[in-house]
Amino acid sequence: MAEGIADRPPARRPGGRSARVRAQILAATAELVARDGVAGFRYEEVAELAGVHKTSVYRNWPDREELVAEALLRYAEDLASVADTGDLHRDLVDFLLALAGGLETPFGQTLEQAVLPAHQSPTVRQALSRILDQRVAALRRRVDTAVDRGELPPVDSSFLGEMISGPVHLIVNRGQRAFARTDAERVVGVVLAGIRATAPHD
Amino acid sequence: MAEGIADRPPARRPGGRSARVRAQILAATAELVARDGVAGFRYEEVAELAGVHKTSVYRNWPDREELVAEALLRYAEDLASVADTGDLHRDLVDFLLALAGGLETPFGQTLEQAVLPAHQSPTVRQALSRILDQRVAALRRRVDTAVDRGELPPVDSSFLGEMISGPVHLIVNRGQRAFARTDAERVVGVVLAGIRATAPHD
Repeated sequence: MAEGIADRPPARRPGGRSARVRAQILAATAELVARDGVAGFRYEEVAELAGVHKTSVYRNWPDREELVAEALLRYAEDLASVADTGDLHRDLVDFLLALAGGLETPFGQTLEQAVLPAHQSPTVRQALSRILDQRVAALRRRVDTAVDRGELPPVDSSFLGEMISGPVHLIVNRGQRAFARTDAERVVGVVLAGIRATAPHD
Repeated sequence: MAEGIADRPPARRPGGRSARVRAQILAATAELVARDGVAGFRYEEVAELAGVHKTSVYRNWPDREELVAEALLRYAEDLASVADTGDLHRDLVDFLLALAGGLETPFGQTLEQAVLPAHQSPTVRQALSRILDQRVAALRRRVDTAVDRGELPPVDSSFLGEMISGPVHLIVNRGQRAFARTDAERVVGVVLAGIRATAPHD
């Protein structure tokens, strides 16, 4: 295990063969976890799909839950950014559409299932917390900027995040209809208007 | 199978031994599905927990998915009512607290898992649609009354339902904190204010 840990490049180290191998392994893990679940996927198949030797997987991730956790985090990075075009409404609409797009994938569905408290191992729970923290932090920065610019009254940004992303999770998870841009527009419109209307006057 | 169906009392028939037995079987099913999942629970244990003979379970529900579906529906009946005290805000807050209470139970969590598209068999999907339809219908009646009374501008009540219940599902499913009355108050406050503020003027 000491060897495995020493072998890992720092997370921010750019490029290189070893970084490429790790990325391939994480992508393969994401795909197989989506297909077979956290408990069902196999290291042999990860190695085969990633085009690497099985020992590369074992050496880098002796603990399978850490492998899953890291694959979850890698996947979620894409969903943890919020653009700043200067138009808060538009940026939040785009954020919700990216979130819905991510949740609709097989891996997103696996993530939604893993997130249910009954299914959380400590390692996976920790990874999920980090994903949520990243997303909340990205949203907080964007919302704080809007508050500074006077676009929005001071607001609890994690509450704002729950208000706008809750309906996205609900609609995608029910699977009865797609989450469309008009949905995102309505959700963001109602929440921003509601926050402005209920803000205490000073 | 013909015998099994003929044996079933109409859904609204009051009381009687056979109705009592059915209720016991459905409650036992709910408990075991929550513990062992839709695929894992066993008829033998349902019978034992319900205190009935195994043949009573098989005769009434030769199809295990129908048994699960009916247990889901029975459970969900409690969550499908919305009071009318004349105060829309208060009634929606109570609705959200009841929803959160239901989702926090082991059976509620099983329901949340079953609802993910990947897990839906046609029978279970149909049951879930009926649950959602019941809930949407109850909410729609309450919202329509509020619109008639001039408490709220005309609004798409199923959208309103998604807006207020989305954050409840999200917070409960993450399991990082309880959904409290202050959460319900904030959610309903922002959504109603936002709907009023964004309503088209006539």
